[in-house]
Amino acid sequence: MKNLKYSHYFLWTTLAITGTLSCKPPQTEETGPANTTKKEATGAIEITPENHDDKMSSVLGTPKHNIRSIGILVYDGVNILDVMGPRYVLGQVMGAKTELIAVNPGNIKTVMGVELVPNTVMDSVDQLDILVVPGGFKGTLLGAYDSRIHQWIKKIDQTSTYTTSVCTGGWILGAAGLLKGRKATTNWYQAEEMLKRYGATFVKERYVNDGKYWTSAGVTAGMDMSLAILNDLYGENYTQAVMLDMEYDPAPPIKGGSPEKTVPEVYQMMEAMYAMGIVPLLDSLDGVIGK
Amino acid sequence: MKNLKYSHYFLWTTLAITGTLSCKPPQTEETGPANTTKKEATGAIEITPENHDDKMSSVLGTPKHNIRSIGILVYDGVNILDVMGPRYVLGQVMGAKTELIAVNPGNIKTVMGVELVPNTVMDSVDQLDILVVPGGFKGTLLGAYDSRIHQWIKKIDQTSTYTTSVCTGGWILGAAGLLKGRKATTNWYQAEEMLKRYGATFVKERYVNDGKYWTSAGVTAGMDMSLAILNDLYGENYTQAVMLDMEYDPAPPIKGGSPEKTVPEVYQMMEAMYAMGIVPLLDSLDGVIGK
Repeated sequence: MKNLKYSHYFLWTTLAITGTLSCKPPQTEETGPANTTKKEATGAIEITPENHDDKMSSVLGTPKHNIRSIGILVYDGVNILDVMGPRYVLGQVMGAKTELIAVNPGNIKTVMGVELVPNTVMDSVDQLDILVVPGGFKGTLLGAYDSRIHQWIKKIDQTSTYTTSVCTGGWILGAAGLLKGRKATTNWYQAEEMLKRYGATFVKERYVNDGKYWTSAGVTAGMDMSLAILNDLYGENYTQAVMLDMEYDPAPPIKGGSPEKTVPEVYQMMEAMYAMGIVPLLDSLDGVIGK
Repeated sequence: MKNLKYSHYFLWTTLAITGTLSCKPPQTEETGPANTTKKEATGAIEITPENHDDKMSSVLGTPKHNIRSIGILVYDGVNILDVMGPRYVLGQVMGAKTELIAVNPGNIKTVMGVELVPNTVMDSVDQLDILVVPGGFKGTLLGAYDSRIHQWIKKIDQTSTYTTSVCTGGWILGAAGLLKGRKATTNWYQAEEMLKRYGATFVKERYVNDGKYWTSAGVTAGMDMSLAILNDLYGENYTQAVMLDMEYDPAPPIKGGSPEKTVPEVYQMMEAMYAMGIVPLLDSLDGVIGK
């Protein structure tokens, strides 16, 4: 092994093995063979088993809230990227357990067909420090009218530190009554009208926070929102560590990603397509709910 | 339902229901109740069951290659976002089947613990139009030394239209011998040295293509690469449609995401952490392989 500058190392924690900051809090020492060979660091940081807690804390800072539990609600028809962006980013909150919480028992069929195994179900979870409600399409609209989901979200919200949504997940938070009188954002499709249904004021931003309520625009905005939450919690060093881990320095090949940056014929086609899926459902659900 | 401008619609295809372009190719008509009520479009696009193929083709264009099969290799320790970015973007290639292909039977434990259900296994797949090899950390390095994976990748590569990698997935393509003499990129950690091991020349870009070989930088660069492939295949209208669907107009809360944009103390800490996981493995594997 000639190209790399290292020779002997101890397996400090599974942090390094898994490539994530979160898998073990730095406070625990139960991992890896207890090889105490001193690390020869290339940079200014020399990390040993004796100093790693202090070194990491000095670089990463101390969070302003003690976050121990993070839950992402998952349901059939949830958008896989709405889930996985926050799962990846918030999963790096050190010392916190991050779980995919299903509405019903069984595996989850996400919107494009990827099948996930959730960690637990809604009925088994009474408290979370961070709640993420991701969006989707048909499944989300059904969720937005499901009183069992509303009740659970309201219960969790009573003691959460952050209550958040990604994309059309904002419709569910809205329908649960949590966005009333608040500023919020959601997926671009009829964003203002949809939020108005729930008494919220649409703000055209990538993510919006109003107190502890954080909402994001469509799908990939969940990553930006999650990074902003991390930034709120820990400050820039921590956020930079996670951004470097995910090499998040985005460079799309062309401009786009918002109605304004999309050529009108493409935008109109997409709007028509979305409408064809959503509007009949809204019609039928309005009939049921009498809204 | 007063806030929306629509009244009656037919369920055109499951495209709209699922919120994706890919679930059914527009050529098929097997979906939805055959309600032929004419759609009252808001924009310039009026889509009816009779004209929808033509309308969509005229907006979205015709692909330069006929892509029918897309496969993403998954293995224990794969990075969930390396997988899901391309799954979401390339899953929107109309008429193509997109599958998660496992190295071994059974569910996949991704790097941060999310459990996925793959669609099929490597031994059942002989041909793909697009192959995506995502990265991870320890599991990826083991994959980079697994001759069964090399053989399968080389077989698929013989007839693929695009052979691609995300993040450290480039180490696997490299170890299979496919990047020899080519320009490529990979995750930032020791990128140049790692690619040199496999005879490739590191180019510091978000994604790099050398002929049909497309490689991307770390984790989230897989989304940019996948969009660039879509753009190569279909051109800008199609890419814009997908970018709007995923609202990909990224706005990270702070700058970062590359070694250059990260403050030195954070960068050095991350490099030290990565090294502690990777270097002992490289040492042991070098011993086995005698590299």
